[in-house]
Amino acid sequence: MPTETTDAAAETTDIILDCDPGHDDVVALLLALGSPRIRVLAVTTVAGNQTLEKVTANALGTLALAGAEDVAVHAGCDRPLARELRVAADIHGESGIDGVTLPAPTREPREEHAVDRIIAEVMDRPAGTVTLVPTGPLTNIAAAVRREPRLVERVREVVLMGGACRGGNVTPAAEFNIHVDPEAADVVFRQDWPLTMVGLDATHQAIADEQVVAACGGLGTAVGSAMADLLGAFRRNYRDVQGLVGAPLHDACTIAELIEPGLLQTVAAPVAVELQGEHTTGMTVADLRPQAPSDGTTRVALGLDRDRFWTILLDALARL
Amino acid sequence: MPTETTDAAAETTDIILDCDPGHDDVVALLLALGSPRIRVLAVTTVAGNQTLEKVTANALGTLALAGAEDVAVHAGCDRPLARELRVAADIHGESGIDGVTLPAPTREPREEHAVDRIIAEVMDRPAGTVTLVPTGPLTNIAAAVRREPRLVERVREVVLMGGACRGGNVTPAAEFNIHVDPEAADVVFRQDWPLTMVGLDATHQAIADEQVVAACGGLGTAVGSAMADLLGAFRRNYRDVQGLVGAPLHDACTIAELIEPGLLQTVAAPVAVELQGEHTTGMTVADLRPQAPSDGTTRVALGLDRDRFWTILLDALARL
Amino acid sequence: MPTETTDAAAETTDIILDCDPGHDDVVALLLALGSPRIRVLAVTTVAGNQTLEKVTANALGTLALAGAEDVAVHAGCDRPLARELRVAADIHGESGIDGVTLPAPTREPREEHAVDRIIAEVMDRPAGTVTLVPTGPLTNIAAAVRREPRLVERVREVVLMGGACRGGNVTPAAEFNIHVDPEAADVVFRQDWPLTMVGLDATHQAIADEQVVAACGGLGTAVGSAMADLLGAFRRNYRDVQGLVGAPLHDACTIAELIEPGLLQTVAAPVAVELQGEHTTGMTVADLRPQAPSDGTTRVALGLDRDRFWTILLDALARL
Amino acid sequence: MPTETTDAAAETTDIILDCDPGHDDVVALLLALGSPRIRVLAVTTVAGNQTLEKVTANALGTLALAGAEDVAVHAGCDRPLARELRVAADIHGESGIDGVTLPAPTREPREEHAVDRIIAEVMDRPAGTVTLVPTGPLTNIAAAVRREPRLVERVREVVLMGGACRGGNVTPAAEFNIHVDPEAADVVFRQDWPLTMVGLDATHQAIADEQVVAACGGLGTAVGSAMADLLGAFRRNYRDVQGLVGAPLHDACTIAELIEPGLLQTVAAPVAVELQGEHTTGMTVADLRPQAPSDGTTRVALGLDRDRFWTILLDALARL
Ligand SMILES: [Ca+2]
Ligand SMILES: [Ca+2]
Ligand SMILES: [Ca+2]
Ligand SMILES: [Ca+2]
Repeated sequence: MPTETTDAAAETTDIILDCDPGHDDVVALLLALGSPRIRVLAVTTVAGNQTLEKVTANALGTLALAGAEDVAVHAGCDRPLARELRVAADIHGESGIDGVTLPAPTREPREEHAVDRIIAEVMDRPAGTVTLVPTGPLTNIAAAVRREPRLVERVREVVLMGGACRGGNVTPAAEFNIHVDPEAADVVFRQDWPLTMVGLDATHQAIADEQVVAACGGLGTAVGSAMADLLGAFRRNYRDVQGLVGAPLHDACTIAELIEPGLLQTVAAPVAVELQGEHTTGMTVADLRPQAPSDGTTRVALGLDRDRFWTILLDALARL
Repeated sequence: MPTETTDAAAETTDIILDCDPGHDDVVALLLALGSPRIRVLAVTTVAGNQTLEKVTANALGTLALAGAEDVAVHAGCDRPLARELRVAADIHGESGIDGVTLPAPTREPREEHAVDRIIAEVMDRPAGTVTLVPTGPLTNIAAAVRREPRLVERVREVVLMGGACRGGNVTPAAEFNIHVDPEAADVVFRQDWPLTMVGLDATHQAIADEQVVAACGGLGTAVGSAMADLLGAFRRNYRDVQGLVGAPLHDACTIAELIEPGLLQTVAAPVAVELQGEHTTGMTVADLRPQAPSDGTTRVALGLDRDRFWTILLDALARL
Repeated sequence: MPTETTDAAAETTDIILDCDPGHDDVVALLLALGSPRIRVLAVTTVAGNQTLEKVTANALGTLALAGAEDVAVHAGCDRPLARELRVAADIHGESGIDGVTLPAPTREPREEHAVDRIIAEVMDRPAGTVTLVPTGPLTNIAAAVRREPRLVERVREVVLMGGACRGGNVTPAAEFNIHVDPEAADVVFRQDWPLTMVGLDATHQAIADEQVVAACGGLGTAVGSAMADLLGAFRRNYRDVQGLVGAPLHDACTIAELIEPGLLQTVAAPVAVELQGEHTTGMTVADLRPQAPSDGTTRVALGLDRDRFWTILLDALARL
Repeated sequence: MPTETTDAAAETTDIILDCDPGHDDVVALLLALGSPRIRVLAVTTVAGNQTLEKVTANALGTLALAGAEDVAVHAGCDRPLARELRVAADIHGESGIDGVTLPAPTREPREEHAVDRIIAEVMDRPAGTVTLVPTGPLTNIAAAVRREPRLVERVREVVLMGGACRGGNVTPAAEFNIHVDPEAADVVFRQDWPLTMVGLDATHQAIADEQVVAACGGLGTAVGSAMADLLGAFRRNYRDVQGLVGAPLHDACTIAELIEPGLLQTVAAPVAVELQGEHTTGMTVADLRPQAPSDGTTRVALGLDRDRFWTILLDALARL
């Protein structure tokens, strides 16, 4: 679980951001880079919102935008563990970050595969020091834990964006990241590690509205300007495709919680991933009944301190 | 859908109450009998909370308690459409109405099978005049609609207790009535008739607390006294088994809505019944997303005017 | 199980033929009518190869052809227990018996529903005297056993056409009768009654070839002539749709076994009906492994004495 | 597909044997080592019949027995792609090769993971020259093809032991290798590469009887003696657990087919792996219907030339 105290100014959290940018992955990455509380050990990419090639280019572009060319990028799995690839072009467009133009990256991803890098990063550092932050399908994480089962006891915790208790987005019951690779999600949720599921129940409370767009634009920086473009396009897509009044910054909620533990309201609950339902495949079935036995290691986010979230986000963006 | 106006003093709603008493079925039946707005054409029974024999005896006993010996009782299906019978003895006890003693019925149920009676009642009366109120597993209703498909266009509407959008009771995702006979529920939800699903999302707002028990006791009648016993036992079971602070009077919410249309907050939404999930079988998957297409005939109750509910209930009980 | 001896000239088997004619149902019915060993108590119909209306007309027409106007016909369920209706127009044509013209029936089916008739016929006769012979989807039988569970101990046995152990017809794994109403089949197979499954493993050995067609034509009777037409059309359809060299007279195998017990080679084996598979729904999963525990009441036909089958069939047809 | 001609004395087939020894894996490996027509590029191991550690030790021991210490062994996945590990201790015992004592291996498996070795071996050699021979669960192969999708067009073919068309072993419908990791099997069968499924339909024709045991013992070599022990124990287990009269040498059938193409009778047929069935999970659903469209790349073995099989096997063993 997160640190007991939040005041230790010197304390930073070492993370691997395993992502599929994707508009909100870009925001999550910028938030992580801009916060003094977070150190990004590596960015690993996975096919999801768009193909592996595109999301990897987007990760590199985001790092270029933020001037963080020293952060290593490793491309990972180009399709789900067991199923065929399905991307989210309706929401994220052909590029994966429709509507925003990032600086052309001046480098390639590293040779090493994301799964190998995740394993090496965790196993080579002291136990309990690396936090995994998956914000795409859980393919890389599942593959890593299958390749090296000792990861489970060695990571500090997993704080992932995915799932939903009270209604999905890509189907009535399932959220995109889990739905596209439910077998991988099943592997990840069944491990006995501290895991926080940051799903739609929380992230649909982080809706970027016009004020947020304006505040980004008002930063007067390249990052702020790109953010304003990105949020504008993202908001249009969400309105057109899902009928939402603004764009939920799903992935950024994970980083915000690591920056300020407690920002999310969470409850301990066992979570099972449905693999077989006709109408429910990819649903994260959390047992929220009063009598449910906690499995002790899984927490589900049900709420978010919105004001703090926006403060944290704009504060970090201003630093870039 | 229910009537546009609620003032028409003369207007009554003709219902068939298809039930499996069960504590809350008893309350639903008493509420219907006590309200001048409801006429009970027949009580039909189905195995669910307890075996068919027991729930039929309980229905007869409740009618005896209310002095409504003229209301016909027809026993129906003694097990689900396709699956084996599972009763809810943990919540309702061995008798189905653990903790309350009803007058011994002086009569037997009618010879005619419930499914035949439902069909005859609907087909012999003018079209659009009979409302089906299922408060148990949907076995009888599904069997009736299979036997006589014209039921669908002939009933006024179906207002059923069952299902849940945001978490179940017998499993993390499923509510009892749907879970024990999901194939029957699937048949019922797939018909093109006006259907209101009154599930846990609404009924968990109708929790009988100590004040309600006291108010029942204070009626100073046999009915009031039986109600106080019944609610007392029901509350203990819910506390012990599901960890709830009081007993939700699930089934009575259907009747209350018919007495005072609009009491429930409902939304139009397509609902599918999951038949195949490992963790979700029997879940009512409502599509509550903003972009969901309404199927035009199904409404889902998400809320309840609690104050009005208790007023309506106590008012009806006082009349018995 | 069938009688120990086959010589008892006086012995007849009383059957209810529950069918969906369908070319091979017609043959099964003619075979039953023509055999002195079989008494047809009633013909009940079920939607399957074609709609209920069409298959009922075909049953009446077949009885008219055979001059058996005294045999009662009762129409039953017009769609499966839980699923939507799917007919087999590709194999049986628009009429259900494409290619053959039967005499126009001079009567209607009886008023009483097939399910009620099955129950009455079995419950009103001495225990152990009525054999159920379902040759269509098992909807009526499942509905009857749900309505009157005592059927199970009261029938003599069930000899049904349906299922397959080693490859289906409508799907790679499933046979038509089971596939279209697997929930009904599941109910029927789970009952503790003597049941013989006559599936494709046996019936694909009863392929009507040109010689059989010629032999029918050579009978020089109206029945023989109609049979020749029917088999000719049926053979063309099977060749075009399933690539078979002749038409398997599936349904007639059940009656032939009752006429001459032992005609089929059967083994005792537990059979489960798959309801959930992506590729296997409606498959009859027989446990044919050496170590499989027999459930004591279910037998599966794996072979057929072809010569005897054709002799029995032509012999019966010649009597009509 | 296999070579057109079988006479080319100089021609050898380069294989990677991906196995989980396992009695019959041991036989397969000895057969490959003893045949001048097969070159074993690497032995890779996967958890299946027993844990990864045990099957890897058994692979090393078998190579020591055969004096093939130069063949590299790489340990692979220690559990299925998505499910939990289930071993076959009932059939193969605690050691995985119950009843036989192999020489203690004088070496360790290589450092490199089996999945990486498979990829390197195939990608570094000329296209179309490496045959994959999986004789355990398909976890390593699926993981390799996910990690490096170009494997599919680069291997020569896949000849795997697994599956069954007409009845399974661990369940009525499923064979062990597929049943324990059906998601991996699904990935492997869905690839567009030449694949021969050597399942129980063929391998149950390769039953080692007393004569075979005696012939092995009569070789008068360490290998022959170990084989006799192994087959004796394997036969006892099969008799006790599955009621078979001898031990089917499943895995060796793959190698025998590569030694003498055409030894197996095969048909082209599409095969789907069932992932969701209640009774059929892990079943290989082959479409053997006459009208089934071939997918062009998958062949299913339905028979075996038994005499040739034993000749090939004893001939190879005699060379060791
Ligand atoms: Ca993402
Ligand atoms: Ca009830
Ligand atoms: Ca038929
Ligand atoms: Ca093996």
